[in-house]
Amino acid sequence: MVDNVTSVNTPTFIVNEAVALRNITAFQSHCNEVGLALRPHIKTHKSIHFAKAQMAAGAIGITCQKISEAEAMINSGINDILITFNIIGPEKLGRLRALSSRLAALSVVADNAEVIQGLGQAFEAAPLPLTILVECDTGAGRCGVQTPKAALELAEKISHISGLIFGGLMTYPAANGSKDAAQFMRDTKQLLGAKGIVCPVVSSGGSPDMWNATTAGIITEYRIGTYIYNDRSLVQRGTCTWGECAGHVLATVVSIPTPDRAIIDAGSKVLTSDLLGFSDYGHVVGKPEIKIVGLSEEHGVLAVTPERQLVIGERIRIVPNHVCVVSNMFDDIWIEDENGSLAELQIDARGCVI
Amino acid sequence: MVDNVTSVNTPTFIVNEAVALRNITAFQSHCNEVGLALRPHIKTHKSIHFAKAQMAAGAIGITCQKISEAEAMINSGINDILITFNIIGPEKLGRLRALSSRLAALSVVADNAEVIQGLGQAFEAAPLPLTILVECDTGAGRCGVQTPKAALELAEKISHISGLIFGGLMTYPAANGSKDAAQFMRDTKQLLGAKGIVCPVVSSGGSPDMWNATTAGIITEYRIGTYIYNDRSLVQRGTCTWGECAGHVLATVVSIPTPDRAIIDAGSKVLTSDLLGFSDYGHVVGKPEIKIVGLSEEHGVLAVTPERQLVIGERIRIVPNHVCVVSNMFDDIWIEDENGSLAELQIDARGCVI
Repeated sequence: MVDNVTSVNTPTFIVNEAVALRNITAFQSHCNEVGLALRPHIKTHKSIHFAKAQMAAGAIGITCQKISEAEAMINSGINDILITFNIIGPEKLGRLRALSSRLAALSVVADNAEVIQGLGQAFEAAPLPLTILVECDTGAGRCGVQTPKAALELAEKISHISGLIFGGLMTYPAANGSKDAAQFMRDTKQLLGAKGIVCPVVSSGGSPDMWNATTAGIITEYRIGTYIYNDRSLVQRGTCTWGECAGHVLATVVSIPTPDRAIIDAGSKVLTSDLLGFSDYGHVVGKPEIKIVGLSEEHGVLAVTPERQLVIGERIRIVPNHVCVVSNMFDDIWIEDENGSLAELQIDARGCVI
Repeated sequence: MVDNVTSVNTPTFIVNEAVALRNITAFQSHCNEVGLALRPHIKTHKSIHFAKAQMAAGAIGITCQKISEAEAMINSGINDILITFNIIGPEKLGRLRALSSRLAALSVVADNAEVIQGLGQAFEAAPLPLTILVECDTGAGRCGVQTPKAALELAEKISHISGLIFGGLMTYPAANGSKDAAQFMRDTKQLLGAKGIVCPVVSSGGSPDMWNATTAGIITEYRIGTYIYNDRSLVQRGTCTWGECAGHVLATVVSIPTPDRAIIDAGSKVLTSDLLGFSDYGHVVGKPEIKIVGLSEEHGVLAVTPERQLVIGERIRIVPNHVCVVSNMFDDIWIEDENGSLAELQIDARGCVI
């Protein structure tokens, strides 16, 4: 615990706790109002501390992208986890079975027969069956079956395997593509219904279009990660304001080699090279005219103006373009309270890519 | 220790030890032939294991970019470290002083009076003085004084502070800009000589132009990082061959949603978004016609061709665009020997950005 931000070493990542908690509450309220269950994605914070805050606000469970993330969350008391990734190979399937025995509810997704077959073999003799949602590609062009008919076929396959339960449908829709996603889901549910297959969960998600999230008469739950911290890309889209950005990189000016250039101690090993459509590497809080025009691994190159100079030793705060990859660069971050005091927080699932 | 690559979980990072050692030896031989001392930069491997291999091959010491990297290396038996970064603030200066007392030789760089003043205060009453090289900007546009005259002024300043020793000049030249760098250094050394200031070290570096590295009648040591693993960017420049790329990301195909798209379990939290001039995210070993066209955090999107399909569960090896940022994503990597056996290696300085 330190008194204020001048006592922490740079570069580092600082989360304003009040802002983060307000972001959690605001979207939970939205989901409550529109009748969506909320299942936050921990990929953004990777922290038991914030996962618990999301559960306390009313989340039904959490989403993880990788099995190692779920393992890192399992000691938090959180009992309901959805892993939104095709899990393949005997070692991971063994870990999945071990996870299953320690949770009240574990579900995963699958978008192909090979993955379902592997899951079936792993859970054939398990004490509890595994719930599987069929992942549908509704326009994002990543994983997912391409048609409602293909979703039906996988659902039927799952239903015929003794260790598995068909739990419903999951999609990560294209940004602003929630209408198409809903129609794909409606068409699929109709096909399922015609075969007498129950589809309890229809899971959608995504931060960019979060305030337009509704059930659309079909969606039951929403997965969302970035909303807890927010970032420059979401400000750009109009999803949030700068004041709602809870996560800042704190960096120090270490050199001013020329009147139009300053160098900070944060480079691509902190800010990452994620541009998300921008041509520079973050928003300098309170000094938007200063551009982070280049990064090497440990240096950030700032274009400064004669009107707005920096001084060596000065600290700046940066809202990253894409906060989810930036917070993942740190083993520990700092949580800032309303008095400006800071406490260190270990990032439980940092680097959990397995 | 595992027998072969099918037993390791993906995504992960694999280093072929024989290739890495050959890369170390080859450039050490080049430096020996041209009369340059070699001071490898550990930023690429961040590992005591490989730093020791570099020292055993004939390196005079190592380069670190950050003080926390140097701290991570200090238990390796390596006694000579150069930190090529302006160190600012009482906490870091205290750590620098502590480091100094545990090493036979510690040097840092500085490119401005404020940094020199801080270093002077920290080492005023230290048992041993600190050696400082003046960083010169010879065209790369990052840190560094802009003129030989400015370098002279800082050298004079250092010489007048009791806890500090002027150790020479350092530059990170622009790619293929070694001629300009040498001229800047010659001009500066002439100014220094006229004032009776000895300049024992002139340090240059950089992997892209490594095979053209010579003393140019002025350079005494060379700093280089990427050469140990090499990467796609260096193949593109003609610096190395694919066979000389020691570091591969191993990933698994988890989904083939359409005939022209496959998804792997490595995204931007593994491969990073570093493009280095490419339009895609790495080179698929043995299958160069397959392009990694998109990354989300944990998914890589591959464009596949009808002629060269992949199958679900298949593993691919990827030479990253920029290996230094990719190896930094893993707490542990795998070292592959000539029989294909693999041993896990902890990355001692991963994430050491302070």
